[in-house]
Amino acid sequence: MDTPTLQLRTPYLVFVGDESRTTYAKTGKGVADWRPELCAGQLRLSADAADLGLSDMTIAEAKQAGVGSLIVGTALVGGSVPDNWLTTLCEAAASGMDIVAGLHTRLDSIERLRIAADAGGSRLVDIRIPPPGIPVASGKKRSGKRLLTVGTDCALGKKYTALQLERDMRAQGMDADFRASGQTGIMIAGSGVPIDCVVADFISGAAEVLSPDNDPDHWDVIEGQGGIFHPGYAAVSHGLLIGSQPDAFVVCHAAGRTHIEGWEGYSLATIGEVIERTVAIGSLTNPQIRCIGISVNTLSVPSEERDEYLAELSSKYDLPCVDPLVTGTAAITRELS
Amino acid sequence: MDTPTLQLRTPYLVFVGDESRTTYAKTGKGVADWRPELCAGQLRLSADAADLGLSDMTIAEAKQAGVGSLIVGTALVGGSVPDNWLTTLCEAAASGMDIVAGLHTRLDSIERLRIAADAGGSRLVDIRIPPPGIPVASGKKRSGKRLLTVGTDCALGKKYTALQLERDMRAQGMDADFRASGQTGIMIAGSGVPIDCVVADFISGAAEVLSPDNDPDHWDVIEGQGGIFHPGYAAVSHGLLIGSQPDAFVVCHAAGRTHIEGWEGYSLATIGEVIERTVAIGSLTNPQIRCIGISVNTLSVPSEERDEYLAELSSKYDLPCVDPLVTGTAAITRELS
Repeated sequence: MDTPTLQLRTPYLVFVGDESRTTYAKTGKGVADWRPELCAGQLRLSADAADLGLSDMTIAEAKQAGVGSLIVGTALVGGSVPDNWLTTLCEAAASGMDIVAGLHTRLDSIERLRIAADAGGSRLVDIRIPPPGIPVASGKKRSGKRLLTVGTDCALGKKYTALQLERDMRAQGMDADFRASGQTGIMIAGSGVPIDCVVADFISGAAEVLSPDNDPDHWDVIEGQGGIFHPGYAAVSHGLLIGSQPDAFVVCHAAGRTHIEGWEGYSLATIGEVIERTVAIGSLTNPQIRCIGISVNTLSVPSEERDEYLAELSSKYDLPCVDPLVTGTAAITRELS
Repeated sequence: MDTPTLQLRTPYLVFVGDESRTTYAKTGKGVADWRPELCAGQLRLSADAADLGLSDMTIAEAKQAGVGSLIVGTALVGGSVPDNWLTTLCEAAASGMDIVAGLHTRLDSIERLRIAADAGGSRLVDIRIPPPGIPVASGKKRSGKRLLTVGTDCALGKKYTALQLERDMRAQGMDADFRASGQTGIMIAGSGVPIDCVVADFISGAAEVLSPDNDPDHWDVIEGQGGIFHPGYAAVSHGLLIGSQPDAFVVCHAAGRTHIEGWEGYSLATIGEVIERTVAIGSLTNPQIRCIGISVNTLSVPSEERDEYLAELSSKYDLPCVDPLVTGTAAITRELS
């Protein structure tokens, strides 16, 4: 593909470092859970580091197994890359593996790593840096079909909803591909564009590049970002929406959430308001846009009340309503095939 | 001001080069027309270069006159910076003047110029590069009042409408400041943020920085960008809108324009649709937002029909309706004081 998207070399060696807290290793966990077939193994620097359920491997073993990229699967909260990490990353780079990360420190700003990558002929892929050549959006209709996940807020399951939709569509025999617009998503998919890192004028163009022309029956299932009523990130959501030209969208929500997380004084818009605004804005580039379902993270709902909660929501909006990680999304995807 | 906005050193020497076509020198013309008090003079490399109505000056004379910046007031269509330009820019930089430009070639990528600037202790200010430190928008209400110009399309007078509004508000004794969100605007104002060059996640944060807390009766008159129904740039318009938190907005339009210029198949939204959508989106961060007028470029309307055209539009939307460069904007600003 010669479009300006990031393209990662697979299979992966997932680097966990010495991170023992699974919540901080959630990028690696996401990759291992959703794309085990892309993961040759994991590399842990200490015995109590999080176990992603992959085979433990050394760099030499990974090299032997034909690994294309070492991907950093843990968050590094502040500060610089620790020395013991660097030694391993340099060894991998020098052996010819690409190093893939989305840390605050740019990989190519670390001289030791740059030298190792030069020696090994490998790439330092910073997934927070968009590929060059992203155009301004043309607004031209593309062939194939598109589904976008949108949300009442950030961080409530837009990525995992899209992945589960892809899984269920494929299980139904549909031709579907997850399209990643964020960092973890890009590692999972092996390609994508970090849409929130693109220069403002090119947001919608990046979304166009992310889901190019395709077969008439092919579905791109696009990972949403932000929230159309979010005081910080609505512009990103708007650009992604009109560039994606979705035929269908699914609204993601977290049960019990009442406010935009981290933005004091901002109540959450209702699911109905999100549907209405998404249709209003999305109609610009695709007048056929429609909401086909609701996806709720029901972690906060007692399990014995979950079915009733989902049924009530479904009846209120006359749409299939799922918890993607509990019920799957087949109730939504059934309507599409 | 320690907020992350670009700040230019005045007064200016406006560099015209050897550009004889006034349309290509419109940046310099804009600065000379709207801020003559900031312009010490112009520098033309040939006798037939466009005359901006300023005193001709050499670099030595400009230095003598205390010029702070040489600003490149002409567009350079493609290609690299010509040698005869560079000689002059280097002379200015070496003498201690900042060089300010928004060319496709980054100023700091030209070694000769970098050396001259180092020698002169001057800055190379590329107004397409946002200042560092722009935050994600907080959505917190700021003190003071704000007016934003929005448009049915790009390139139809949002900047000049904002400048005329500032002029008329000041003439009425109001405390008002033009806030520049684009390149020419920044040169005119001497400060600002190039909002379309900011990384996506920070668009609304850039807008917040652009119009910080102010006195209760102070008006920021903010230069709009793009158009909320524009298939390429709507995301920028959305981010600027919610970050600006405008109390009031003016819709800009070009008489006779029926389609988004350069985007085939996209009809222009009506002024009524733009008002409705702007209120819907802007209400997120300022529920008081309202449209206070319409500003039309009536160049395409025969002058004897202009008054009737404006009167009809005014009656249709029950709003004052002006051509800012012909009638001024006092019909709008009167309502505010």
